[in-house]
Amino acid sequence: MSTAFDFTPLLPAGLPAPAVKFTGLPKYNFTGGNNDGDELPLDGLVAAASAVLQREGRTLATYGLASGPQGYRPLRDFLVDKLKRVAGITCTADEILVTSGSLQALDLVNGVLLARGDTVIIEQDCYQGSINRLTKLGVDIVGIPLDGDGMRIDALAGALEDLKRRGIRAKYIYTVPTVQNPTGTILPEARRAEMLKLAEAHGVPIFEDDCYADLIWDHKRPPALHAMSRSANVIHIGSFSKSIAPALRVGYIVAPWAMIARMLSIKTDAGSGAVEQMMLAEYCVPHFAAHIPELTRGLRKKLDTLMESLNEHFGTAAEFEVPKGGIFLWVKLPDNVDTLTLYQAALKAGVAINPGPEWSINKDHSRSRMRLCFASPSHDEIREGIAALAEVCHKEFGVPARISNVARAGGGS
Amino acid sequence: MSTAFDFTPLLPAGLPAPAVKFTGLPKYNFTGGNNDGDELPLDGLVAAASAVLQREGRTLATYGLASGPQGYRPLRDFLVDKLKRVAGITCTADEILVTSGSLQALDLVNGVLLARGDTVIIEQDCYQGSINRLTKLGVDIVGIPLDGDGMRIDALAGALEDLKRRGIRAKYIYTVPTVQNPTGTILPEARRAEMLKLAEAHGVPIFEDDCYADLIWDHKRPPALHAMSRSANVIHIGSFSKSIAPALRVGYIVAPWAMIARMLSIKTDAGSGAVEQMMLAEYCVPHFAAHIPELTRGLRKKLDTLMESLNEHFGTAAEFEVPKGGIFLWVKLPDNVDTLTLYQAALKAGVAINPGPEWSINKDHSRSRMRLCFASPSHDEIREGIAALAEVCHKEFGVPARISNVARAGGGS
Repeated sequence: MSTAFDFTPLLPAGLPAPAVKFTGLPKYNFTGGNNDGDELPLDGLVAAASAVLQREGRTLATYGLASGPQGYRPLRDFLVDKLKRVAGITCTADEILVTSGSLQALDLVNGVLLARGDTVIIEQDCYQGSINRLTKLGVDIVGIPLDGDGMRIDALAGALEDLKRRGIRAKYIYTVPTVQNPTGTILPEARRAEMLKLAEAHGVPIFEDDCYADLIWDHKRPPALHAMSRSANVIHIGSFSKSIAPALRVGYIVAPWAMIARMLSIKTDAGSGAVEQMMLAEYCVPHFAAHIPELTRGLRKKLDTLMESLNEHFGTAAEFEVPKGGIFLWVKLPDNVDTLTLYQAALKAGVAINPGPEWSINKDHSRSRMRLCFASPSHDEIREGIAALAEVCHKEFGVPARISNVARAGGGS
Repeated sequence: MSTAFDFTPLLPAGLPAPAVKFTGLPKYNFTGGNNDGDELPLDGLVAAASAVLQREGRTLATYGLASGPQGYRPLRDFLVDKLKRVAGITCTADEILVTSGSLQALDLVNGVLLARGDTVIIEQDCYQGSINRLTKLGVDIVGIPLDGDGMRIDALAGALEDLKRRGIRAKYIYTVPTVQNPTGTILPEARRAEMLKLAEAHGVPIFEDDCYADLIWDHKRPPALHAMSRSANVIHIGSFSKSIAPALRVGYIVAPWAMIARMLSIKTDAGSGAVEQMMLAEYCVPHFAAHIPELTRGLRKKLDTLMESLNEHFGTAAEFEVPKGGIFLWVKLPDNVDTLTLYQAALKAGVAINPGPEWSINKDHSRSRMRLCFASPSHDEIREGIAALAEVCHKEFGVPARISNVARAGGGS
């Protein structure tokens, strides 16, 4: 064999660093949007896949195109019903575009609205995948602080005024109003009305990401911003990743047809995977409504285990508000803890966390914060993982102090 | 309701035209990469889906991540074996990245190699999706003419010399060497060796797209360029769209790990759909090798029907070479026929074709050519569709002349 060809001189400028080789999942995995394998409605999904493939599987030979490029029609019909029932949204199947996960939804909405140098408004603490996409697109990001009720409307009003003074019209206000990521807050109806009023006054549309909205402990949610809008100025996206299973990669966009038509023209993937769409429609029509309370009951128990473990092992060193739903907890550690450093040290001990600075555009505010996903690990793994994390944190930063009072193999210094 | 919000002023420059609303498939559909529904191994796929989901379905809760971000490990293991057996490729599972169709493979390879203003070399008549991607990326395209044995190596040598004189190093030579799209040719082994020699001499890697390579009438194919390379300068992609079903959206990339690592870092979709990958691995390990000859037998019969119908209805007005495999025929009509015009007129008569200029970067050469996909329509639909197409073509362009000698309802002028 000759010397191996060197591709390096051919790589364009600005590529991200190469990925590292996958070496297995960490023992205690508190990261990502992973869900609870035990709560996956497996029997129902297997039966649905069998039934729908036997009945309609031959359409797979034609890209599932009997339903057109917007996605499997029975799934869009299910969404029309479900979004009406749960979120108050009135739309037609023509106003829905099924996507390969809500990540593709983010890409398509950004693709038809953003150019380098544009400005967008987002929640200061925000989903990493959304922040990274905007950064890569070269967009100016204005972050709005949150409180226990989600985005602070006074701060939003101030930011819009400030942009107006500078002659800048933001391309959208991006919000995760219903179980915010990472804070777990729900924006109350009154704030939604105020946000819509500000959006209309400034001519800025709202980009509503409701991907966690099915997972609410008391199943009470305000209407979607899309439902409350009087001027069709809201693009709404959602997902089956959190309610059914993330590996299905099925999300959706609800928007006026004129915008769906724009997004279709840049969706050059020959359609999103048809088997998952068919399987989901077949399962969800009869079973979705009953599945959700079962799932959230299980998730809520895991949240309790996580909060108990944090109280036990971190004591007052871990501060958090009880999220209204979802699969993660946003935790504040003492100011001297740098969670990016903690992340590296914990990973060596087999514990994976999401460090705050990756989930926020305010690096000072998020420096000592972390996001813990509690859906995927078992109750025992949650307890053991948090105990291990407390030991690492103590060793690195001296907090929680209490650990040093307890004799532990390998703990303390 | 207030006046609907106007998104138009927010759209960035350069967006493609909005899509038109889907109104159903044409009656006679000779377009796209659609396959033969009757040849879809449905029972096998249903059984595979059931078995693998029952056994491993709970991994769907964690993005199928037990196998890591490169895709379901048993599918990559199947590919390692299959590519060795069929194409002579020696690679490991670490050198394979499973993608959402080979379209995502195109996007990822382009994403890690191309920047605006770069130059690439492609076959003059070439897959529309590849051409469109390069155009959108603002890349200079050098087209190499083809003959009955695929890309003309003398022309490739000339183009590389010309670029060298101009101080330009092309980013890659893109080729569909094994059942070329749209010409259906297979590049012989000797030409492959020459292409590799030229590529090495000029320091230009080869981008080998083998997505139709399973569909060869006599099942004889030269080794892949990837297999013949002595310097690992070939990035190879493939797909299950043509061999199993396009709606599965499962493709793959074979490349040195250093390049896979680069592509992984820009693959920000949280993985490709897991159900399809699991189902494919479960089905393909025991059944793929036996399925292919059944599929190609059926496709070959449809090709015969298509060629007979063209001879019957177009006579000498339709010229073509018998493709070595695949699902399409590249047809030359008389010089006065503009297939872009024919496309519009035929569509009104319920017949969809791929006009040549969309499948070529040489608009003169392709003006009177068209691509006909014969896999999806039934034998009767092929006969009726070609008869209808001949009538439209006669009406618009006066050819085939013979039509005017036959009394037909609606035919002639």
